[in-house]
Amino acid sequence: MKINLLVGGPIENYPERLLEKRGQDELWVGADKGAVRLCEAGIKPILSIGDFDSSTNRERYLVDVMSKEVMTSVPEKDDTDTELCLRLIEQRFHPDLISIYGATGGRIDHLLANLFCLLRPEFLNMISKVEFIDKNNVIRFYNPGEHEIKQIEGMRYLAFVSMGPVDDLNLYDEKYRLRHANLSRVISLASNEFVSETAHFSFKNGNVCVIWSKD
Amino acid sequence: MKINLLVGGPIENYPERLLEKRGQDELWVGADKGAVRLCEAGIKPILSIGDFDSSTNRERYLVDVMSKEVMTSVPEKDDTDTELCLRLIEQRFHPDLISIYGATGGRIDHLLANLFCLLRPEFLNMISKVEFIDKNNVIRFYNPGEHEIKQIEGMRYLAFVSMGPVDDLNLYDEKYRLRHANLSRVISLASNEFVSETAHFSFKNGNVCVIWSKD
Repeated sequence: MKINLLVGGPIENYPERLLEKRGQDELWVGADKGAVRLCEAGIKPILSIGDFDSSTNRERYLVDVMSKEVMTSVPEKDDTDTELCLRLIEQRFHPDLISIYGATGGRIDHLLANLFCLLRPEFLNMISKVEFIDKNNVIRFYNPGEHEIKQIEGMRYLAFVSMGPVDDLNLYDEKYRLRHANLSRVISLASNEFVSETAHFSFKNGNVCVIWSKD
Repeated sequence: MKINLLVGGPIENYPERLLEKRGQDELWVGADKGAVRLCEAGIKPILSIGDFDSSTNRERYLVDVMSKEVMTSVPEKDDTDTELCLRLIEQRFHPDLISIYGATGGRIDHLLANLFCLLRPEFLNMISKVEFIDKNNVIRFYNPGEHEIKQIEGMRYLAFVSMGPVDDLNLYDEKYRLRHANLSRVISLASNEFVSETAHFSFKNGNVCVIWSKD
């Protein structure tokens, strides 16, 4: 089962037509402003979560009547909306994949909080089923091991980002290869590319995120 | 002396009217597509750097005639444009401040490469004079010590981002305070705020970036 999560980032960064013509069998969770946008687009969230402190009464009413369930969180909480949603989505639905939209653009502290929160011990066991998607990027996360990744249509570039120290990183069959690299800190190895339909990489310790992107 | 550096990210993320009505005494360096944009806006770069492999002949000619100096870099080099520019700007001009524009928006691998490259040993001694600026964010970097920061007009939010392990982080007088926090990895402590004109923080080991931002 796949869950789509819409958080509150700027609409300009959404993939094209994100909220148009969605299949009725798609499952959406909305976080705060994201929940409002889902409901305004006629998509009924299976769960809406947020403090809704920047929403109008009309928006809050819309979310209440359209959502299957609404959970009101406390403003000024320690968790970000994304963290709260990830935890609840995992507990409730045990999905195979969580595709997060609206997490990029605008505030960079939010983007970094979204990317980095997956390193929290409680989320490490679910990072392989989380992806962030915007109009220019798809971001997925990997625990140590051997991995095969596939081209995504329209996304020309490929990047490997160490999320902290990473041991023995191997990029076997990408345009720019790497053997037994030990990275001591966060590094974004940008502007790599696929040379065939699939690419393979491995590493021993740490966490890596892979970014498919286009200009 | 202050140097402005324009790299090649999307124009939509520039601060408003970035390239209009600039003072004639401002010093600009352009990286690749950024150099083209400076010249097209009538700003004469003191240095233009790039492989210009995605520029037209007309664009390349414009850069050649308008720039005080052009350095052609090799495509598919190991350094990113930003790294190359930082190194050259420091060697040539020894500026007090390097304000980088065009480093955000679009590809997230580029954004992360730009932020994280400052952790390379060769750049650590200059991180305190580098800032990234876009329409929603100002990002500055700090080495260990005691620091005072000031409000930036229009930027409501304040974030402290550990760029790796950070020891004994103290946020003394921000809206959300922290005492003697040891952070073991990259974490974005987002959505803090100033409570007066200035705020103070300190930490003992590691590197912290501070993000002033607005929605």
